[in-house]
Amino acid sequence: MTTDKHTETTPAPVSVLGLGHMGRALAGALLRAGHPTTVFNRTAAKADDLVAEGAARAGTPAEAVAAAPLVIACVTDYDALHALLDPVNPAALRGRTLVNLTTGTSEQARATAAWAAERGATYLDGAIMAAPPGIGTAAATIVVSGPRAEFDRHAPALRGLAGDTPYLGADEGLTALYEMAVVGLMWSILNGWLQGAALLGTAGVSAADYTAVAAKGIPTVADWLPGYAKQIDTGTFPVDDATLDVHRAAMAHLVQESESLGVNTEFPALIKAIADRAAAAGHGGEGYAAMIEEFRRPAAQPR
Amino acid sequence: MTTDKHTETTPAPVSVLGLGHMGRALAGALLRAGHPTTVFNRTAAKADDLVAEGAARAGTPAEAVAAAPLVIACVTDYDALHALLDPVNPAALRGRTLVNLTTGTSEQARATAAWAAERGATYLDGAIMAAPPGIGTAAATIVVSGPRAEFDRHAPALRGLAGDTPYLGADEGLTALYEMAVVGLMWSILNGWLQGAALLGTAGVSAADYTAVAAKGIPTVADWLPGYAKQIDTGTFPVDDATLDVHRAAMAHLVQESESLGVNTEFPALIKAIADRAAAAGHGGEGYAAMIEEFRRPAAQPR
Ligand SMILES: NC(=O)c1ccc[n+]([C@@H]2O[C@H](COP(=O)([O-])OP(=O)(O)OC[C@H]3O[C@@H](n4cnc5c(N)ncnc54)[C@H](OP(=O)(O)O)[C@@H]3O)[C@@H](O)[C@H]2O)c1
Ligand SMILES: NC(=O)c1ccc[n+]([C@@H]2O[C@H](COP(=O)([O-])OP(=O)(O)OC[C@H]3O[C@@H](n4cnc5c(N)ncnc54)[C@H](OP(=O)(O)O)[C@@H]3O)[C@@H](O)[C@H]2O)c1
Repeated sequence: MTTDKHTETTPAPVSVLGLGHMGRALAGALLRAGHPTTVFNRTAAKADDLVAEGAARAGTPAEAVAAAPLVIACVTDYDALHALLDPVNPAALRGRTLVNLTTGTSEQARATAAWAAERGATYLDGAIMAAPPGIGTAAATIVVSGPRAEFDRHAPALRGLAGDTPYLGADEGLTALYEMAVVGLMWSILNGWLQGAALLGTAGVSAADYTAVAAKGIPTVADWLPGYAKQIDTGTFPVDDATLDVHRAAMAHLVQESESLGVNTEFPALIKAIADRAAAAGHGGEGYAAMIEEFRRPAAQPR
Repeated sequence: MTTDKHTETTPAPVSVLGLGHMGRALAGALLRAGHPTTVFNRTAAKADDLVAEGAARAGTPAEAVAAAPLVIACVTDYDALHALLDPVNPAALRGRTLVNLTTGTSEQARATAAWAAERGATYLDGAIMAAPPGIGTAAATIVVSGPRAEFDRHAPALRGLAGDTPYLGADEGLTALYEMAVVGLMWSILNGWLQGAALLGTAGVSAADYTAVAAKGIPTVADWLPGYAKQIDTGTFPVDDATLDVHRAAMAHLVQESESLGVNTEFPALIKAIADRAAAAGHGGEGYAAMIEEFRRPAAQPR
């Protein structure tokens, strides 16, 4: 196959569908890595800079699909993806590989893999765990699932987008689960940090001063996770740091402080409510990771 | 003063009140740093190991206060602190320095500073940003507020407890605010991580495998914070990564995925609800840090 020849010698041709913040970063990185790159975007003007840098402009999604055996899509959501690809003649997709980096659910990824299979195309699902400026750097991660052979064939192009491209398995839905887990973690960090910035702001402390102290705590917590993961995997939650009850007492202080200073209380209150339920279920004397049981089930009461 | 002489030559005597998980770590680190260390705990047996390592056992809190000019307290909460110290003859506290490492609110810290001042004692409020195994290491942080001169005088002892001891200012309430901000951030990270472990668990992925991928995202997010802090301090929220609306679309996927897999939905739903309010307030096209306005005020509707 031409792609095999290309990946072993010169960078293979790639088409990119979607030139939003992320799509432009992807296409730019492919160009810089030397891939002949064809681009399409609904709003054509977003391709201008890339075309100036050497990308070929496709007038339609079908033209982009025709231009390269590897088609990378990154648009808002699966509705946008299908708005672009459903009108393409199914026969034109035969033999193509679609690498879909659009965020969605595991169900949507599996359904789109089936949609691609019906057209004789192969499908890899990817999730980008980086912001656009990180694309093309060693620090960026793009996790990928789908057929192993297809992953191996296109790994060189994927490595041009992210230095780290873990293969998760054949189930196309896995990337979406990982992505949701990781972006959920990201929002949790950002929200926890914003709550603190709001609290310290009431005392006239700048977000920069607060962050200089707060950011030190983050790697510390990150270092605990492998140990807690082991506890979850073995189902035992010994305390080598603080019991959940000690955490709950401090959570009460956070709620109280947030209330008395007039900042957001719902985020702290939910943190405490979940821990209180874990304690009510008998885990107050165990370590923090015992809370996993509360995260494994829907809330006791619907909100 | 004897303390001055001691800190410049040999480690000064210190008393520790409270020998829970954290108090034992504190007393142990002081002993290892060579401080003559006197310990008291309500449940006396928790002192046994420390006494075997060379600590002096006080039979009452008053004996501990009498034994050293520097008294470090670390108990569950301020009720426990006052249960120990209120019965001590006020005159016995004159000239002592109380370093209180007990978690509480900024109001409680300021009230206890006033309580100490009435007895002629000086007061420093500290907050430990480390778990017990980290105490005595370079990686541990203990933030301190209160009179600068007292902080400087006792800094050598404090540095034996934590390599990093930032002085935050004269307001004794500042440490509590920083502590609440940092532990709030810690719980946010842990809960975000637990949500992901629950999600991936439904697909049979171990917490260890999930954590190997998820943990990589944490330093990436930490790296964004100084930039976001600058945005908050200047009140402008340009987008160099993703708009809040792009985040909201992905948040909807997290909620949907969590619902369909039967894991906790309230944590994702709250993340989305706060972002939706920020968008409704006109910030959908801005960067994530624009959400600070939602954290600066109580929820629109009481929960
Ligand atoms: N930005 C990040 O930091 C980041 C990180 C990880 C993952 N992601 C994911 O990457 C994907 C794209 O994000 P982004 O930041 O690039 O978003 P964006 O800047 O808003 O761009 C959205 C893209 O989707 C296209 N699009 C939307 N609706 C469409 C439709 N109905 N028909 C055709 N095209 C449509 C847009 O075309 P127009 O230009 O014509 O509107 C544009 O190319 C999302 O799934 C996001 O979750 C983003
Ligand atoms: N552990 C951590 O990772 C950590 C991290 C940062 C900050 N902290 C803070 O450090 C403080 C202590 O935490 P910890 O983990 O050491 O808690 P812990 O293991 O539960 O120990 C609690 C201590 O408080 C004493 N106490 C409780 N109620 C009392 C009362 N009414 N009268 C006298 N003594 C009383 C206990 O004495 P008995 O032994 O007699 O019960 C024990 O010494 C808390 O404010 C916590 O938020 C802990």
